[in-house]
Amino acid sequence: MQLGIEEIASYIPSNKISNLSMKESFGIDDSFIENKLGVNQKALKEVGEEASDLCVKAYVNLTKKKPIVKDDIEVLVVVTQNPDVKIPHVSAIVHGKLDLSEACACFDISLGCTGFVHGLSIIHSFMQHNGFKKGLLFTADPYSKIIDKNDKNTFLLFGDAATVTLISDNPLFVTGKFSFGTIGKQFNELFCHGEFLYMNGRSVFNFSAKYIPLDVSAVLKRNNMTLNDIDRFVFHQGSKFIVDAISKSLKLSKDKVPFDICSYGNTVSSSIPLILEKEMKKDNNINLLASGFGVGLSWASTILKRKD
Amino acid sequence: MQLGIEEIASYIPSNKISNLSMKESFGIDDSFIENKLGVNQKALKEVGEEASDLCVKAYVNLTKKKPIVKDDIEVLVVVTQNPDVKIPHVSAIVHGKLDLSEACACFDISLGCTGFVHGLSIIHSFMQHNGFKKGLLFTADPYSKIIDKNDKNTFLLFGDAATVTLISDNPLFVTGKFSFGTIGKQFNELFCHGEFLYMNGRSVFNFSAKYIPLDVSAVLKRNNMTLNDIDRFVFHQGSKFIVDAISKSLKLSKDKVPFDICSYGNTVSSSIPLILEKEMKKDNNINLLASGFGVGLSWASTILKRKD
Repeated sequence: MQLGIEEIASYIPSNKISNLSMKESFGIDDSFIENKLGVNQKALKEVGEEASDLCVKAYVNLTKKKPIVKDDIEVLVVVTQNPDVKIPHVSAIVHGKLDLSEACACFDISLGCTGFVHGLSIIHSFMQHNGFKKGLLFTADPYSKIIDKNDKNTFLLFGDAATVTLISDNPLFVTGKFSFGTIGKQFNELFCHGEFLYMNGRSVFNFSAKYIPLDVSAVLKRNNMTLNDIDRFVFHQGSKFIVDAISKSLKLSKDKVPFDICSYGNTVSSSIPLILEKEMKKDNNINLLASGFGVGLSWASTILKRKD
Repeated sequence: MQLGIEEIASYIPSNKISNLSMKESFGIDDSFIENKLGVNQKALKEVGEEASDLCVKAYVNLTKKKPIVKDDIEVLVVVTQNPDVKIPHVSAIVHGKLDLSEACACFDISLGCTGFVHGLSIIHSFMQHNGFKKGLLFTADPYSKIIDKNDKNTFLLFGDAATVTLISDNPLFVTGKFSFGTIGKQFNELFCHGEFLYMNGRSVFNFSAKYIPLDVSAVLKRNNMTLNDIDRFVFHQGSKFIVDAISKSLKLSKDKVPFDICSYGNTVSSSIPLILEKEMKKDNNINLLASGFGVGLSWASTILKRKD
């Protein structure tokens, strides 16, 4: 039995905040918005809407693409660091809202921008080990709950969204070998203690620009591949500045590196599956590389191969 | 390569709160403490001590039992719903404090009383899938952070502790097949929104008394075993009342059902590994059954077999 990604769906709130309207208050110009952030507007969830609500909306969009038999779902995983409540896990709340089977295992994974890639490995291996055929991997990290509206480093960048990935024994793409890493000593470059997120943008940039090109080479080697074998490099959409820096460092042609967060922002663990949702549909895309980096500080990469 | 549990170590704070001193204020008697709770005193972490600190203390105790080469640790998982901070995950903070290798993957699992059993399956399968040979599974859920001192349902019951389980290719015990379940619709019988934990003790008891005996039968069947094959039934130490009720329902002899939280309390996801730490050392214990239940509401069970 070969497990992999059968489908990805998502939910991006239609409510947006424009960065263009804030040029004066934050002392920024069009070039900063276009070339550094790459974010014109950020998606914003409704007040009172929680991670589980965003997950349910992503699930509804999944059912529009694929009919889902609820009793077939054997595991439900939510990647988040902004759960509805402290206890229980969001996955249990989503399980209740979707009225899934009592035999379904539920757990949350606490990770940030690397969470989707880690999550792919975790849910895949958990399903394989337990003989499961269908599982749902959600990402939903509504950073608007922890953003200080006066903090230029974070307010202009992050947006809300959720995604759901159907992992099954009828996959469209299968994963290759993974690569993971952590520099726990630098955790306080990106952390939230109390009300608001703090990000040392310069440190996180330097970390990503140094480690991710190395990790891309490492994961390619582990999969017996080279840069030329990859049709699309799906990097965590941290900002235009960081994706450009990594691409430049690896000498990648721009058309191989999708960047598409202009209308919704950096959506943390949802950023990679939002891009994959579109790229997987393009028949010419055979081999994709996905690479997440951020909170931890940490990174995770893998290859996604179109199934023959 | 066969992975399994090589060693378990733990940390229980020496600071205790006595339930005997609170008989008058809560209107309870010795019989309630002895027969319903089974908790004379609860372990209490120091003020300002966080989940990561408890994990580090458990790790120090592990190193007293087994020499650990830090660079050998390829994955570090923390099970908690009371992290140090919202972002990052506790595992990254522990990674930094222990100065582990940059090649180590770190993530937290958000689960309550079932977290150790789920965690065993998650870390085992993740390691197997990625070809890892050594990993650390921590549990640390300091409920004293969220307990209302005036709430009889929770204050008399929960204690603080942490455990660490070394998963390796040199195991003392290997896991059998697992069983998992969730009733997400009942999540609000045991939840924490805001400052304090709320528990509907009666509902959680009824849930556990109904579902866990059924699940024990199910996981035994899945492993082609019967009640008679099991030397020790290691149930989540929810309270004496619930462990007795499950034992009675399954007609288990008392000496096969360890209950040992009298001096530290219900330590959530640490309760099962705290018992296993002792039971694994007894040479006559060949087959153990571990079963967790609680937050979610959820359950998880598996078999642990002594390796030949």
